[in-house]
This record gives sequence, structure tokens and C-alpha cells, in this order.
Amino acid sequence: MADADAISKADVTRARLIDAALIAFAAKGFHATTTRDIAAGAGLSSAALYVHHKSKEELLYLIAHNGHEQTLQLIRSAAAKSTSPVEQLQRIVYDFVLYHAREHTTARVVNYELGALTPEHYKEIARLRHRIDRTIRTVLDRGVFDGDFVAVEPRVVTVAVLSLGIDVARWYREGGTWTPEVLAQRYADMALRLAGAQPATRR
Amino acid sequence: MADADAISKADVTRARLIDAALIAFAAKGFHATTTRDIAAGAGLSSAALYVHHKSKEELLYLIAHNGHEQTLQLIRSAAAKSTSPVEQLQRIVYDFVLYHAREHTTARVVNYELGALTPEHYKEIARLRHRIDRTIRTVLDRGVFDGDFVAVEPRVVTVAVLSLGIDVARWYREGGTWTPEVLAQRYADMALRLAGAQPATRR
Repeated sequence: MADADAISKADVTRARLIDAALIAFAAKGFHATTTRDIAAGAGLSSAALYVHHKSKEELLYLIAHNGHEQTLQLIRSAAAKSTSPVEQLQRIVYDFVLYHAREHTTARVVNYELGALTPEHYKEIARLRHRIDRTIRTVLDRGVFDGDFVAVEPRVVTVAVLSLGIDVARWYREGGTWTPEVLAQRYADMALRLAGAQPATRR
Repeated sequence: MADADAISKADVTRARLIDAALIAFAAKGFHATTTRDIAAGAGLSSAALYVHHKSKEELLYLIAHNGHEQTLQLIRSAAAKSTSPVEQLQRIVYDFVLYHAREHTTARVVNYELGALTPEHYKEIARLRHRIDRTIRTVLDRGVFDGDFVAVEPRVVTVAVLSLGIDVARWYREGGTWTPEVLAQRYADMALRLAGAQPATRR
């Protein structure tokens, strides 16, 4: 009983440190953030931070890992909701853009600070990115094979579809022209155009 | 004569400091870069830096200003090469993507560090960005009016076209799958799809 309490308290502290790290990295970048900034953000001492996390880099790795895992799951479950490549692509892009608009702060850190990871950690994230890539690429390849997507090079369209979603995190802010849902819908439509889906199949 | 020499020497030093600032900002971000880093990169003392530039922020502003001016000119001159919206869009995207692939280091700093500018400097950069935006938007509006671009919302396509180009700077590295020229060509084609250009007009 006492042990279970102790574990969950540590988990809460760990999570609080991850949140504080995310806010600090987003505000001034990984390199300018000190472990003291992160500890202070979580209401702890620097010494307390090291009880829970090995380093500032480990916190970045955890943030990047969680973010990429979440994205991979989201894309895989969007793809699993249909067997039609047209519908799969629509759903994937809708969910992907929705996530990048809603979680733009996390997504910026996750995408723009990867250069600060250790080579081992970077390799793990690259593996997750590759899986995200493959999921979209497979949908495009199938669509080309089935004749749903016409005259496209699936490799470059995969890059463009991912790019459009990721870049949303750079420019999107709450209270602008589009809600995350409206934006996600527009981008899903544009992805079908990029993929060469014929207007008839698009409705 | 001696005066002219003195002026041009100062210009060279100023340019060297801008180059050193760009390299440092790209490597560890604006906030983690010290004026000492920049001065050292240019082979100067910190004191010498302040003879030429008021602050680290001023250096960022100059980099951002040059980058945006260059982009605006590039887009305007691409648009001026034709009166057909289809060709204008193709040329704009080709040149825009080529620039972001070739100058990816500069483009990353120019696009990802704007939050570190003073409000006055930010406003000036926002004005340049608005002009870049308007140039593309005008081409799309005209294309829709002429019937070259079908069933599109020019506002969201403008954002997407800019996004695709800017995000190239995030992921593009020399020696990958595509040369800057091939990538620019593929992206110009994709921009026409995004804009709803009919395949017949695309060739």
C-alpha cells in the first residue's frame, strides 16, 4: 500500500518534469534550457530532477518518443478504419493535421529539436518516423495499384503529406482563421488532390 | 581613398559576423548562442562585435530581413515571367522550393527563430511575409477567376504551398533522394494539383 503510493507519486513527479521540460524547450529551445529551468518549472530542486531523470537529453528523448508513438498509433488506427486507399488517406491526414494543430507546441519540440538527441536515441526516433512514413506510403502504393490515385510518385507525395501536417505546428495558433477540425478537413481534401485522386472518388 | 577602404573593411567584418551568427543560430538556436560564440566564429573579440552590431537580436533581424527580402524578390520575379496563372504558380513554387533546398540552413533560422525578434523587428518581417503571401494569393485568385484553377479555396492553398516549401528546409539534406532541381520540379507539379489545375493545362 505504502509502496504503491510511493510509485505513483514518483510517476506524477516524472510526468510533471516532462511537462516542465516541454514548456521550457518550446520557449527557448533545448540548448538554452538548463536543468534548473526545468526543475523550477516543476517546483523542484535541480537535485530532485536527477532523482527522476538522467539528463535534459533524456527528457527530450521521452517527449520525442511519446510524441512519435502517439502519431504512429493515430495514423495506424486511422488507416485501419477503412480498406479503401482514398478513405484511408483522408482519415490519416485528417487525424494527423488535427493533432499538429491542437498539439502544436509539443509537435514543434518533437520535430525541430531532434538534432539534440544522442545518436542512439535519434536512431530509435528515426525508426518510429520510418514506420509512420511506411504506413502512408503503403496506402499510396495500394491506391496507385488499384487505380484510385493517378499519375503520382508515391514517395514524393508521402513526403509532401507529412510536410503539410508537420508544418501546421509551426504556424498554427488558436483563434486564427480555421479551427483544427476545419483545417484538418481542408488538408484531407488537399491530400487527395496531391495523390491524384479523381474528383469522382473524392466526394 | 583611405576612407573608402575603411568602409569596405567594416562591411566585410559586418558580413563575416552575420555569417558566423547564422552558423551559430543554426547549430544551437538563438537563445543558446552567446555574442562570444558569434565573435569567435568570425575571429573577433566580443567587444569588436559591438562596434559593428548592436546586439545578437540585431544580427538575427538582419538575417531574417535579408532572407525574406530575397524570397520576396524571387517570388515576384518568378511571377513576372508569365501572365498565365498556371505558369506563374509553377515558376513560383519551383524557385521557392529550390531556394529552401539549397539554402536550408538559412531558411531554418529565418523561419524558426522569429519568436526571438523584438516586436518592432517582428512587425517588419511580418510585413514582408504578408507580401510573399499576397503574391501567391493573387496568382491563385486570378487562376480561379480565369477558370484555370477549379474548386479551390485560394487562402488555404496559399498556406499549403508556402508550407510545403518552408518545410523542405527542415528535412532536406544534400546527397539524399532528390537534387534541389528535381525536388523543385516535383513540388511545382504538386502545387498545380493543389490548386485544382486540370491535367490538360498542366502539361
